[in-house]
Amino acid sequence: MNTNKQTLRGIIPPLITPLIDTDVLDETGVRNLVEHLITSGVNGIFILGTTGEAQHLSIKIKAELIQKTATYIRGRVPLLVGITDTSVYESIRIAEIAAKNKAAAVVAAPPYFFALGQPELIEYYELLADKSPLPLYLYNMPSHTKTMIEVDTVATLAKHPNIAGLKDSSANGVYFCKLLALFKNRTDFGLFVGPEEMMASMVLMGAHGGVSGGANLYPKIFVDLYQAAAAKDVNKTIELQHKMLAVSQHLYGIGRFGSSYIKGIKTALSLKGICSDFLAQPFNLFKEPEKEKVKKAVKQLDKLLAE
Amino acid sequence: MNTNKQTLRGIIPPLITPLIDTDVLDETGVRNLVEHLITSGVNGIFILGTTGEAQHLSIKIKAELIQKTATYIRGRVPLLVGITDTSVYESIRIAEIAAKNKAAAVVAAPPYFFALGQPELIEYYELLADKSPLPLYLYNMPSHTKTMIEVDTVATLAKHPNIAGLKDSSANGVYFCKLLALFKNRTDFGLFVGPEEMMASMVLMGAHGGVSGGANLYPKIFVDLYQAAAAKDVNKTIELQHKMLAVSQHLYGIGRFGSSYIKGIKTALSLKGICSDFLAQPFNLFKEPEKEKVKKAVKQLDKLLAE
Amino acid sequence: MNTNKQTLRGIIPPLITPLIDTDVLDETGVRNLVEHLITSGVNGIFILGTTGEAQHLSIKIKAELIQKTATYIRGRVPLLVGITDTSVYESIRIAEIAAKNKAAAVVAAPPYFFALGQPELIEYYELLADKSPLPLYLYNMPSHTKTMIEVDTVATLAKHPNIAGLKDSSANGVYFCKLLALFKNRTDFGLFVGPEEMMASMVLMGAHGGVSGGANLYPKIFVDLYQAAAAKDVNKTIELQHKMLAVSQHLYGIGRFGSSYIKGIKTALSLKGICSDFLAQPFNLFKEPEKEKVKKAVKQLDKLLAE
Amino acid sequence: MNTNKQTLRGIIPPLITPLIDTDVLDETGVRNLVEHLITSGVNGIFILGTTGEAQHLSIKIKAELIQKTATYIRGRVPLLVGITDTSVYESIRIAEIAAKNKAAAVVAAPPYFFALGQPELIEYYELLADKSPLPLYLYNMPSHTKTMIEVDTVATLAKHPNIAGLKDSSANGVYFCKLLALFKNRTDFGLFVGPEEMMASMVLMGAHGGVSGGANLYPKIFVDLYQAAAAKDVNKTIELQHKMLAVSQHLYGIGRFGSSYIKGIKTALSLKGICSDFLAQPFNLFKEPEKEKVKKAVKQLDKLLAE
Repeated sequence: MNTNKQTLRGIIPPLITPLIDTDVLDETGVRNLVEHLITSGVNGIFILGTTGEAQHLSIKIKAELIQKTATYIRGRVPLLVGITDTSVYESIRIAEIAAKNKAAAVVAAPPYFFALGQPELIEYYELLADKSPLPLYLYNMPSHTKTMIEVDTVATLAKHPNIAGLKDSSANGVYFCKLLALFKNRTDFGLFVGPEEMMASMVLMGAHGGVSGGANLYPKIFVDLYQAAAAKDVNKTIELQHKMLAVSQHLYGIGRFGSSYIKGIKTALSLKGICSDFLAQPFNLFKEPEKEKVKKAVKQLDKLLAE
Repeated sequence: MNTNKQTLRGIIPPLITPLIDTDVLDETGVRNLVEHLITSGVNGIFILGTTGEAQHLSIKIKAELIQKTATYIRGRVPLLVGITDTSVYESIRIAEIAAKNKAAAVVAAPPYFFALGQPELIEYYELLADKSPLPLYLYNMPSHTKTMIEVDTVATLAKHPNIAGLKDSSANGVYFCKLLALFKNRTDFGLFVGPEEMMASMVLMGAHGGVSGGANLYPKIFVDLYQAAAAKDVNKTIELQHKMLAVSQHLYGIGRFGSSYIKGIKTALSLKGICSDFLAQPFNLFKEPEKEKVKKAVKQLDKLLAE
Repeated sequence: MNTNKQTLRGIIPPLITPLIDTDVLDETGVRNLVEHLITSGVNGIFILGTTGEAQHLSIKIKAELIQKTATYIRGRVPLLVGITDTSVYESIRIAEIAAKNKAAAVVAAPPYFFALGQPELIEYYELLADKSPLPLYLYNMPSHTKTMIEVDTVATLAKHPNIAGLKDSSANGVYFCKLLALFKNRTDFGLFVGPEEMMASMVLMGAHGGVSGGANLYPKIFVDLYQAAAAKDVNKTIELQHKMLAVSQHLYGIGRFGSSYIKGIKTALSLKGICSDFLAQPFNLFKEPEKEKVKKAVKQLDKLLAE
Repeated sequence: MNTNKQTLRGIIPPLITPLIDTDVLDETGVRNLVEHLITSGVNGIFILGTTGEAQHLSIKIKAELIQKTATYIRGRVPLLVGITDTSVYESIRIAEIAAKNKAAAVVAAPPYFFALGQPELIEYYELLADKSPLPLYLYNMPSHTKTMIEVDTVATLAKHPNIAGLKDSSANGVYFCKLLALFKNRTDFGLFVGPEEMMASMVLMGAHGGVSGGANLYPKIFVDLYQAAAAKDVNKTIELQHKMLAVSQHLYGIGRFGSSYIKGIKTALSLKGICSDFLAQPFNLFKEPEKEKVKKAVKQLDKLLAE
């Protein structure tokens, strides 16, 4: 167990997982995407999260992705690896692969089949943190896991020497502001915002960074926005915020289901020649009408964000 | 119909409703509370909201409360009146009483028995705005109404000459940040934050104010916090935010149900001699063990917030 | 307080509320509908329920409806009156009007703005039962009220001398079967099924009747189905059940929102010349394309149910 | 692909998974439990369902359990294997192991991380049915998967030659009764009830059997109850139903979380010497006070069910 808690800061995009076909990794896509992000100044890369379709991938592909991403990053930024699984044994297996590939930390949402009680959650995370060879970040995502990691539970878990922070994707501003107050005097517990639309507001109030899905496509606007907010420059933050919001506004509402934002980002990346737009089952690719809409959106966004 | 949209700003506490007994208003309590708030610098008073137990009051008490509050305010700050009801006819009846008492505006959440579709919601609000003698504020509160007033619906409704703004109690930071972007170039549509814990973060980003329940008890800290955030003074905002958060931290978790925060505030106000702690059915008063906890909390908070 | 608990049995349709226009009762429609139901053999009539759009009506119309329905029924079957409201004072007011018009019982779902805890629910119902001049039926409808009346809570409340039974609209077969076991040795507590699609299965197991919305339109098939199930004739029950299910299958899915089934029934009744199809806000009338579909459905159902 | 659809009938208990320790199968327990069930007359055995803690087990243990159960069953009753996973590739891997061990069918709930749209669900199940070497049963469990397999979706999927039936654990009587009507003329599509409390009522109306968790402990009462209901003997069904309901009433409410019923069954089986009470993380074992309660419950139930 690594007892040096991480002090990660900034924009750590949740990598989409480039795929060529059913259960076949798009290795060139991974390399291109990693370069695209690092050259734009991101502060880390997070693989196998929700945006990375982790729950839909086979273990084989997960292991390949960890190995390839680590190779392409070449130590330039920290690598975070999602190990969320309903089976703690499978989570630990992935954590060990991550450690072997010199990842900086692992990230786990609660098991997501049964809704758990908070005492069950505490025991679960303590076991996982005990067994994990890398520092562990909690990942709050009640819309998908059914279980909120409540503020008091975070307070308890933060005492564990191998639990290093939390990524919150609840979109709940009350929850996040309470966490910011709880950890106001600690620099060793990282608080990261999932939903990109509210990232800047929370960084102004003290959050340490954002795990922003849109940064796969337009990393620079997110890096700039984070830096403005971290520097407490409110006017610049608001100006960049309104620019950045165009990404979700134009790109995430194409398509009908919860997966639309992932499809929007993957299709756009494929139009830009960075990687393939294939999606793992149960999602399916956009068809021509949706692809046309993405093409139009990308054209508008390219212009808007270049200004 | 009043076509001069309001340009309210700042802290507008959602008044708790002082009651002496079942269906009996605590008139002295209302007067004391109004003075307590106005002398602390609040920018308006909102009666008959969720915190005011509006849904549990008889129509008779509602009418009395409107009349008394208007009398005690004496025009010093604007009066907003909640007219939320599942029957649009009853909502209009209350709006007419509000107008007769020279209220500044009315506030309505969606009907809350059936979950409505967005087109139904648009027709509903347009009818209500057409018939309301006072400018209408939308009130988004999906946890209680089951229906989110979606961003596109707000965009449509904001075109109505008698719809003046929105109060959001969803606690959803993504939703609120999208609204801030949508209305960035309009000064005639007010965006107010319900949950006090995230108010400052949204005011920094451009929100016009907060309808903060805790301001019933400690109005000054909320006024100061709003002003720091409106002035874009990030460091002072964070300092005051952490002070203010002590209110919800110490006071709202006593008791077991969704009504705990209302009970906490009412009991504390009664301990301070401002008004009675009686609650309308189906809520019930705190018993001695809870009252003791509130007493302790108030002592701590008085000290902390005096600093 | 009336301590003679009711022993209602059979089909008690939840009357739709015939309206001519905004806040104007369709009196002829009410008379026609009452005759339509009683001549078809229903065992009671329930007004001001969910199907009756009670939450959307003004108090004036509610009082009129109670008085007119009582007049037209002429004591031939028991009249039940919905008194569900978020304000217990308004519920009692309606209960008193019901008593004055010689209704047999009142029916109340939990207050539906705040989600209540079970102890709050018990205190609430005990107060209401104490004050109600007529026997009270509990009405479980968690999809609309957010609060389940849990089995243990029903067990506690059933001890009250003025609580006479429960109507369950949760559609939860586990819940209903547990209640049937709980009250297996009591003939003085009525258990009624809301959703018509599962009525027969629960009557076979011991339920006392159904509050079936479709019985507004086709009362006879529901009366026949209830009688087959109450007589434990399984084969005839299944045969009639499959006939009856055609009503919901053909009629309730026209339109897009939760209100579709009410619109389907009202439009069909208006096509049959029984009453107007006007709906109270926030619902709106079907337009021509949907009306055409209802016309087709009614033609099919008339033929099918005549066989 | 096996195009001979199964025509399973009766009680098919969802086997709890006997474990000795973390990731260690209790082989003797499996053998004892299989004998306990088959000698009591069950009609099949379903492993790796919700009650079997499938989502919390490693792939290694899953493979072992399939192999051991098949060995101990010795072809006396059909073996059904749960293959529910968020990754379709892992589901297919388990299906292949099931086929190699001569299981009769596989069972899959929808992927349970993202809530899926119905068209996504159809594509997903069609792919899975195409690739599965064994007939596939759909498993509706919206409380855990967030996605209801809607009636129209079942109608579409039932046309697939390798989809043989559905197990419904929604507890929704309306849903199940609609399915019974939809398939009234088909003998090749099995409809099974999950929640044991409503099993008998649905078998009376035409359901083909029950996947009743309590049958792990008291198989005979479930077999008798099913047979009475399948024979349309209503009075005997009600009598046995009220006996059977004592199991859930006494045993499932010990403990605080959603996992209580699994803990109750496992602890009771261990008290009876059939298998160990170990649970896979994130669940934890009952401690002494809860064990005492289970002991008392088992004593009462043994007496009651022996009568």
